[in-house]
Amino acid sequence: MEIKVIRDILEQNDLGADQVRRFCQDHNLFLINVLGSPGAGKTSFIQSMIKHLSANIYVIEGDIASTIDAERIAALGVQVIQINTGGACHLIADTISDALLQLAPTKGSLIFIENIGNLVCPSSFDLGESMRVLVSSVAEGDDKPYKYTTTFQAVDLIVLSKSDVKEVIGFDSEYYRKGLQALGLENKCLEVSFRTGQGEAALSSFLASIIEAGKCLRV
Amino acid sequence: MEIKVIRDILEQNDLGADQVRRFCQDHNLFLINVLGSPGAGKTSFIQSMIKHLSANIYVIEGDIASTIDAERIAALGVQVIQINTGGACHLIADTISDALLQLAPTKGSLIFIENIGNLVCPSSFDLGESMRVLVSSVAEGDDKPYKYTTTFQAVDLIVLSKSDVKEVIGFDSEYYRKGLQALGLENKCLEVSFRTGQGEAALSSFLASIIEAGKCLRV
Repeated sequence: MEIKVIRDILEQNDLGADQVRRFCQDHNLFLINVLGSPGAGKTSFIQSMIKHLSANIYVIEGDIASTIDAERIAALGVQVIQINTGGACHLIADTISDALLQLAPTKGSLIFIENIGNLVCPSSFDLGESMRVLVSSVAEGDDKPYKYTTTFQAVDLIVLSKSDVKEVIGFDSEYYRKGLQALGLENKCLEVSFRTGQGEAALSSFLASIIEAGKCLRV
Repeated sequence: MEIKVIRDILEQNDLGADQVRRFCQDHNLFLINVLGSPGAGKTSFIQSMIKHLSANIYVIEGDIASTIDAERIAALGVQVIQINTGGACHLIADTISDALLQLAPTKGSLIFIENIGNLVCPSSFDLGESMRVLVSSVAEGDDKPYKYTTTFQAVDLIVLSKSDVKEVIGFDSEYYRKGLQALGLENKCLEVSFRTGQGEAALSSFLASIIEAGKCLRV
């Protein structure tokens, strides 16, 4: 039986992340790591940005199993690589490094990484990304910033999705806002419904302005 | 820096799980490990069962941070212990062992463990439980049995929650059922809405029959 040492795993991952960063600098790539719970709307977010942004886009799809999400992306005519982790609860930098070599993206491209559906583990693993986006659905409840502080504090933008079901779910916006405020994140959250389209234009404009500035937000 | 070895972590956990099992046998306890994504409705499930079941109930609440869920349980007059893992993405058996000693439940009691909100990691860790229940919300989408196969296959009952928002979410029941069927789980799923109360009586009757039989489903 193989013995893995956690310290080595994190050190090894940091080396991989440095490699990804160098690759992105050399090829002028903007890399967005998309985090969130299962069913939060990560694929819908990426699909929406593909439709709204004028950039040349590639996608790296992470899942425990299945190619469902990769098929949704490929249907939009975008080049996509599916990574099935088997059981692993997060993506690691070495996998991203390999995927980038396979994709061979043209200079100046935008790359989305859809991480494993998990509000806990992925935020501990640096993938060498330029920016981290957390997609969190109102259906998960208004208490998430109070309970999953580590992940909320580890991202650059929170996309509060499924805003159209706020009322039927009984989501308390004021309580949620206070939770974000306690973490200093009240200005980092945008609401959107990918079903009705509400908020999509504002979200894509905001993201476009960050991508155009081309500055890595993670260093 | 401490070096943790994964093999030792799993072996250590199995020893702890055996200890929990012995404690439960000695005290005639029925222990239910409740798994699910963030915001799936795990606490609502436990609250509902507290209201519907006539058993003497105790609750062990797992969260990364906060005491929000423990307060919801305590408000029902039930003895509860909150475990905050800091960053850890699942509960371990040793923690349950300690919690049981602290709770000192009377013989013949029913104990609910609410695991960390995470559809991936908790299912790999045996807590010495008598039964595993997965709470999964329709808001997470109808593709979950296809993507999170490991966790779906590791449970004894699936509670499909928030059934009242099926239509507004666009949940495809037939696609979901086929996903369960592919895993041999089509008879292990009950639908419920803890908001409208629909399905609660059937769910609690079903659970009561299992608990009355008193047979551990995990050995």
